[in-house]
Amino acid sequence: MEQYSSKLLANAVEQFATLPGIGKRTAMRLALYLLKQEKQDINQFSDAFIKLRNEIQYCSECYNISEEPICTICNNPARDENIICVVEDIRDVMAIENTSQYKGKYHVLGGIISPMDGIGPSDLTIEELVNRVSSSKVDEIIMALSTTMEGDTTNFYIFKRLKEFNLNISTIARGVSIGDELEYTDELTLGRSLINRVPYENTLAR
Amino acid sequence: MEQYSSKLLANAVEQFATLPGIGKRTAMRLALYLLKQEKQDINQFSDAFIKLRNEIQYCSECYNISEEPICTICNNPARDENIICVVEDIRDVMAIENTSQYKGKYHVLGGIISPMDGIGPSDLTIEELVNRVSSSKVDEIIMALSTTMEGDTTNFYIFKRLKEFNLNISTIARGVSIGDELEYTDELTLGRSLINRVPYENTLAR
Repeated sequence: MEQYSSKLLANAVEQFATLPGIGKRTAMRLALYLLKQEKQDINQFSDAFIKLRNEIQYCSECYNISEEPICTICNNPARDENIICVVEDIRDVMAIENTSQYKGKYHVLGGIISPMDGIGPSDLTIEELVNRVSSSKVDEIIMALSTTMEGDTTNFYIFKRLKEFNLNISTIARGVSIGDELEYTDELTLGRSLINRVPYENTLAR
Repeated sequence: MEQYSSKLLANAVEQFATLPGIGKRTAMRLALYLLKQEKQDINQFSDAFIKLRNEIQYCSECYNISEEPICTICNNPARDENIICVVEDIRDVMAIENTSQYKGKYHVLGGIISPMDGIGPSDLTIEELVNRVSSSKVDEIIMALSTTMEGDTTNFYIFKRLKEFNLNISTIARGVSIGDELEYTDELTLGRSLINRVPYENTLAR
């Protein structure tokens, strides 16, 4: 698969192969698929990503993706503003919303502390979370991160940063199997884990 | 995964999910990955596909993808112009080139006859192959299609169309396991199957 008869094709394959989980062979298959589509469809295809990247907005309160400066969850007066559920990314917001077990607000970190991937606390919205907590009447924080090493590290770091405030900090119950990604958890387990959340201190004494 | 907090995101996910083999969940992961990339990289990413579709050229002889009106294989005087190897798409050209067992020219059909997918002979470059054979000194045709039902159908149709010419028509040896896709065959088997090609008639008497 080393020789391409066209630089245009080689370039398209290369671009597809930059995506996570897409190898050279799959990239080739995708590029050939695009070649057979209408020009108009390809324009729509490509436009979607440029628009996504250029026009996307993040809620200035919780950093969820939003069409407005403040997202529909933060703007909803029916949501309990005393509780913030801290999640890694917007897929987790969607997953928790689907359980219908949570009526508070969210804080989207935009990632998880992972020294292996070069992601430190300053790459996430942790400072913004601290500011948000210090300037509002939040009294409970639910940490809803993946039960991985990186999730534990992030839990620990955020717990330390928020200790000075008078907060009830919990993590979602470890009904989620250790080592599993949050977004692949079934709704029942995830819903149960929100109800059975335990004080953060308890998770340290394992 | 039904609720998206952004139409832009929903649209990007939808576009990714139009690709073969990409489901909604993978599409979501890819869209979120793009969100974290530089704007410039996204522009390059999207541009590659628009350029591919708008600027790609096909060799006017063999219909391989090409940067020039005539591709480098057709233009190469060292290649035997008496033999044409008929393949489904350009991946197969690359696969055969990698075996280093073939020094003739190619004809890229641009697909395979597949009534299930609504692909008939007129959607492929079969007419162009007939014209090419009738107006040149080609005396041998090697059919190198996948050993599937669709491949057999296409072989049969092309054999019928070329019968009137004084040609040696063969198919690559059935060393390729029946039901396998050509492009996933290892180079040794594929090379061997080119050397051991058999007259088309012999493949009918199974």
